[in-house]
Formats: sequence, structure tokens, C-alpha cells
Amino acid sequence: MITCETHIRVRYSETDQMGIVHHSQFLNWLECARIELLDKIEMPYTQLEANGCRLPVLNVHVQYKRPAKFDDRILTRVTLRELPRARLELNYEIRRQDTVLATAMTHHAFTGPNGQVIRPPQQFIVALKRHWSTES
Amino acid sequence: MITCETHIRVRYSETDQMGIVHHSQFLNWLECARIELLDKIEMPYTQLEANGCRLPVLNVHVQYKRPAKFDDRILTRVTLRELPRARLELNYEIRRQDTVLATAMTHHAFTGPNGQVIRPPQQFIVALKRHWSTES
Amino acid sequence: MITCETHIRVRYSETDQMGIVHHSQFLNWLECARIELLDKIEMPYTQLEANGCRLPVLNVHVQYKRPAKFDDRILTRVTLRELPRARLELNYEIRRQDTVLATAMTHHAFTGPNGQVIRPPQQFIVALKRHWSTES
Amino acid sequence: MITCETHIRVRYSETDQMGIVHHSQFLNWLECARIELLDKIEMPYTQLEANGCRLPVLNVHVQYKRPAKFDDRILTRVTLRELPRARLELNYEIRRQDTVLATAMTHHAFTGPNGQVIRPPQQFIVALKRHWSTES
Repeated sequence: MITCETHIRVRYSETDQMGIVHHSQFLNWLECARIELLDKIEMPYTQLEANGCRLPVLNVHVQYKRPAKFDDRILTRVTLRELPRARLELNYEIRRQDTVLATAMTHHAFTGPNGQVIRPPQQFIVALKRHWSTES
Repeated sequence: MITCETHIRVRYSETDQMGIVHHSQFLNWLECARIELLDKIEMPYTQLEANGCRLPVLNVHVQYKRPAKFDDRILTRVTLRELPRARLELNYEIRRQDTVLATAMTHHAFTGPNGQVIRPPQQFIVALKRHWSTES
Repeated sequence: MITCETHIRVRYSETDQMGIVHHSQFLNWLECARIELLDKIEMPYTQLEANGCRLPVLNVHVQYKRPAKFDDRILTRVTLRELPRARLELNYEIRRQDTVLATAMTHHAFTGPNGQVIRPPQQFIVALKRHWSTES
Repeated sequence: MITCETHIRVRYSETDQMGIVHHSQFLNWLECARIELLDKIEMPYTQLEANGCRLPVLNVHVQYKRPAKFDDRILTRVTLRELPRARLELNYEIRRQDTVLATAMTHHAFTGPNGQVIRPPQQFIVALKRHWSTES
């Protein structure tokens, strides 16, 4: 298991006229969390992309439990539970202190420079294994 | 059943450096489709909101099948299959001509001016029934 | 002079918690107007880009006069007053019916595939001249 | 003079298909910088808003000098040079290390809960004076 926590401060531009964060913005926060997870395993996304590998989103599922508000300090925890074979599954929890605002799940393909599906790069698997934890 | 089709032209600002539409933008298109569905049943969202009723997103699920590109002409079809009781379920198909780019589902609560959960307003149910179709 | 009008319906996702359209969204509408101007002179942006020419924004100036609101029907008129030499200057007026919501100006460079500044493509100048109007 | 520096890491969702940050995103960064400036003078925006005062953007001017890229670490410095009378003028510099990516200027009105123009709140002026610096 690999887990990573990212801190985000809610921007004014992320709110809508309901007075809360627009639900689409949560997807951008999930993405920030993924980027930091890749940093943590020392395989930053820019390096993956430079090596011709991308991680397009195959599907996303978000459950909104409580609204996020302007200026909230948000913590997004992303967890990888299994080494990816064909595709990558990530799970997320978005919190404001002890309050869970949303949970989410994304699936990603590994694609090459022309968009064709490829296997997970070997160096990516190695990086994951190097940082793998058995704690829960 | 009620169905509604919305035409959208992809904006440059909706793309990302992968050269395709950023996946979070699809949620905004789903929202445009919902707004037009409410227009179609003559119960526009602005009127619902003026009457103190909102439809916050409880959860969203998107399956991305093909990338959307800048300047694509997108058709988003939203379908309501069942009259809402506690919550509203909507299903979506996003297409470029005959190519399905994504399918999606959203659930919505009905909430009052202070965010408390309410029952679907009677006039909303009446409007749905007036436009209900038995075609599939 | 070349002028072009674009119709936009304000999206819910474009509002903020002030209950009006977030000011940054106006830049996306200006971009939509530019894209339609290029369509009008039969030199669509996708074709310009395919020919290795891009039009990055050098500077933007927006004067906000009245707020735009969710569901407003907005008309964005863009005007090119002079044939571009080194750079392109465009002027904009954003209106809701007779009410001017904002005026704006953008300057653009012409750049090649590697980002280097280039001269305006000859076919672009030809296209502009073909649609040039002396009306004001 | 009051100045404040804000650090931002460029998000993937902020890029466009030119492979750089979309120009409209800079406006969101300017806003983040303003919010932190208000924090610095101990008059956070949420408190201003709770007191019925808002700072809508009257106009914005951005000069783009160099592109920002995904994952760049950006520093936005905002400067208030003069105590506001009728309106607030802020100046900005957006940098990546020693490279200036953009300069900008915004003007803001002070408005009350119904959108009417008001004078700068006395407590806001007091807060500014308390943190005013004569350094340049």
C-alpha cells in the first residue's frame, strides 16, 4: 500500500453561487493528490511523461458527503492498494480536519506517446515496490 | 422517461497539455445537460432556486471511452428514467457524432435554502409527469 | 474591419459565491469569440495550428462594468480594426441585450511550432483581406 | 506599501493543448495572492465578506512575458502602493525563480451586501496602516 496526503486551500474561483465549492473542482484536487503520490515514489509525472507514458483517467467516481467552502484547508489522501497490472486504481478521501467531505476512486490506463495502451513501465513498478508499505 | 440533448462546442480553455479535453470538464457539460433538461420540462433551474430548491450533486460517475478534442461538436444526452422519490438519478451519454466519448451518472438531493434535505417539490413532479414519455 | 458576434449561455460552473460569474471566465468567452472570428474568415484555429501557427495572448485588459449571472444569454462581439503586422490586436464588447457587461482588449503574437515569434502567415492576411469590411 | 508573496505549484488542469498554462488561470493566481495579502494584514477576506464588504474586480490587466508550465513553482508577489480611497489598486509580478512570467494590475471596488458601492471600511484602512511599510 502507498498513501500520500496533500494539503490544499480552497480558492475563491473554485466556489459557485450555491456558496460552496463546485463539484467539478474536486477532480482537480484528486489530480493534485496523484501528482504528489508520484513525487513521493520519486517518479514524478513530468518524468513519466518525458519517458512517453501517460495516465489518462478511465473513470472517476466521487461521493460528495459535505460541502467544501471557500478558504477551507482541505486534506486529500490518496491510496494505492494494489500494484497495477493493466490499469491503476486509486482511492481518495477528501477531508477538512475530521470531517470527510468526499470519497473518490479513479482508474487510469497507461498509454504511450500516440495514445496506445501500454503496460505499466517497469521503472514505475520498481518505484512502487521500493516505497510499498504493509501498514494499513 | 425524459430525455434531452444538448450541443456543445469544445472550448480551447477546456483542453490540457495531453492535447485533449481535461476530464474534469465533462462534469460541466453534464451540468449544462441537466439545465437544459429542466428547461425542457418548463421548470428552469433559476425558477427552482428562486423557489428555494437546489439540486446538489451527491455523487458522480464518469466512464471515459474516447478523448474529446478542441473544437469537437459534442452532443450530451441526459435521461431521467424514474420519477425521483428521495433523490434524482440522471444518466448521460456524451457523443461526437456516432462515437461515444463518455457515459455518466449523477445522483442529486433536493435541498432547501439552508441546505437541509427536502422532498422533491410537488410542482417539479407535476412538470416531470407532464413531459413524461413512454418511448425508450 | 472585421467583426464577429458569438452567443454564449452562462454556465452554473462559471459562477462564484458572490452569486455572479467569476471574472476569470470572461477570458474564456473572449477566446470563444476569437475562435468564431477565425471561422468567419475561413481560417479556423485548428487549421492555423495544423500549419504550425499559434496565437498566444501577449496581454489582456478587461473592464468589468456589470456582473454577468447564471443563465444569462451573453453576446460577445470581437472586432479587428487593423491588419496585423507584428501582432494582432482585438477589441471586445460583452453584452446582455443592451447592457454592456464588459469591454476588453487582447494582443496576440504569431508563433511557430517551437514558440518562436513569426510573421503573420500570408494566407491569414489574405483571408482577412477577403473578408475586410469598410463599414463601422 | 504592503507586499505579499504567495507560492503556487502549477496544476495539470491549468494547462492547455499549447502545452502551457492557459492564460485565464493567471487571474486565479492573482486572486490567491490578494487573499494572502488580506491574511497578512489580519483582515481575511472571509471576515470582510462576513462584515458585508466585497471587493469585486473592476478591471484587470495582464502582460504575459513567458509561459508557465505544468509543475512549475510559481511565486506571485502582490503590492499595494497607496491606501485606497474610492478603489483599490493592486500590482502583481508572477515569477518562476528569476524569470518574470507576467505582470498584472487589478482595480477593485468596495461594495456592500446588495452590490452598492461603499467606502473602504474603516477597519480595513486601520489594518492597512498597521502593516504599512516605507521600504520599497
